[in-house]
Amino acid sequence: MNDAILSNPKAPRVRRAAALARKKERQEQGRFLVEGPQSVRELLAHRPELAEVVYASMGNEPWQHEVDRLASEAGVRIERATDEVIAALGETVNPQGVVAIARVWEADLAEALQVARLVAILHEVRDPGNAGTVLRAADAAGADAVIFAGESIDPFHPKVVRSTTGSLFHLPVVVAPTLAAAVGAASTAGLTTLAADVRGDELPVAQAEGTLGGRVAWVFGNEARGLSEADRALTDRSLKLPIYGAAESLNLATAASVLLYATAFAQRA
Amino acid sequence: MNDAILSNPKAPRVRRAAALARKKERQEQGRFLVEGPQSVRELLAHRPELAEVVYASMGNEPWQHEVDRLASEAGVRIERATDEVIAALGETVNPQGVVAIARVWEADLAEALQVARLVAILHEVRDPGNAGTVLRAADAAGADAVIFAGESIDPFHPKVVRSTTGSLFHLPVVVAPTLAAAVGAASTAGLTTLAADVRGDELPVAQAEGTLGGRVAWVFGNEARGLSEADRALTDRSLKLPIYGAAESLNLATAASVLLYATAFAQRA
Repeated sequence: MNDAILSNPKAPRVRRAAALARKKERQEQGRFLVEGPQSVRELLAHRPELAEVVYASMGNEPWQHEVDRLASEAGVRIERATDEVIAALGETVNPQGVVAIARVWEADLAEALQVARLVAILHEVRDPGNAGTVLRAADAAGADAVIFAGESIDPFHPKVVRSTTGSLFHLPVVVAPTLAAAVGAASTAGLTTLAADVRGDELPVAQAEGTLGGRVAWVFGNEARGLSEADRALTDRSLKLPIYGAAESLNLATAASVLLYATAFAQRA
Repeated sequence: MNDAILSNPKAPRVRRAAALARKKERQEQGRFLVEGPQSVRELLAHRPELAEVVYASMGNEPWQHEVDRLASEAGVRIERATDEVIAALGETVNPQGVVAIARVWEADLAEALQVARLVAILHEVRDPGNAGTVLRAADAAGADAVIFAGESIDPFHPKVVRSTTGSLFHLPVVVAPTLAAAVGAASTAGLTTLAADVRGDELPVAQAEGTLGGRVAWVFGNEARGLSEADRALTDRSLKLPIYGAAESLNLATAASVLLYATAFAQRA
């Protein structure tokens, strides 16, 4: 630990780190921002080898002791910084006193899918909160990998990182150039590929037929447009979550969570 | 339709309507704000008797023709207003050209529960987006009523209304003074009351035992604190959504959606 307190929000390394809010900078530097106690704790606990440095404010809150301990155990450098520096580093209005810089990693697509039983593929999902919430739900449901395909949001976008509340560090996350590449790899690995789509059969039909009990990769489309006919044609089958009431639709994160958990339950039944 | 265009954002009736963003004003006036094309359309289509007036901007977008038609069919007064007036009326930064004023209604608790098969009870849920998302998911899962108990957010809060995307007008919504009153009424109506709580049995246990196939009222607690021991003691049983991965928890709206749908599936199996 460095005893000097980093107090200049315009210091070159602070500006260089703050620039990681932009995708171009993340790609050039190969690093990304991890903001807030929960995300930093999960980074240090699950993927310490990715952590480069932790900037933390002074204080005596419980998370500070835990972050100090985890960083120390993992041999990750921790620097004290003023609230002003933390605010300049963070993309959020309220970064809650701690920001880490971590290296971007890439899980290998084929390897991540090899023994996977449950996979979520996001295709052209653009909203970082949606993407992060689906990743978190996939983690909770025991998914073995999450694939960001096509023009989906970058999984290392600060808002995605934040809304996963650490799940980004719990399972392999892969960026695939196209949906065809992602679905092709899933098929090659022996997974049944299912498109979540309102034109498909109702989920309970597939539940009754035993489709969900096997190894499954779900494909979730764009928040507003869903999946195209061509997208669906890549998959083995389309299924929809039935709407039993008068709601017109469900938001993407809700639908994905219900579908992933229904599959997790069927696989364990 | 009035041919004059309402153009003064400081007109008394505009200020009086805008004041409905505050709970005290909603209680005093017995009215609430409904913002945006989707919510207004659902109000007019499902509960036209509650609509007092629709303020709509001039324009030629598809929703405007539909809102005009629905208001006309329902005999609801529609007034043209400038974007400035719409902005002054709405609680949102972007009210999308239309705001309606509707009367607050109260469904009768015992009556709403009498033949209900699936009910969601929110206890001390404070975030309007969470409450609205749960209400929308409950509607989609075919719930027969949603109860806001104890110190929960007001269901007529503009942000709750907006995040239900119309589901507020699809099923009976009841405000109950306490959780005991809500759970008591559900029990009296013959429903099994289930607390969503991490200290409970795992959901699949109850699925296998057939608990979910009967008439069920789920109780969901505060976003941060969950339910207290005393709250849980009021219910027949506590159940938790198992976490199969490394995620620490799920957010309230995700967990509630999965639990409500799992129940809906069991009831139809």
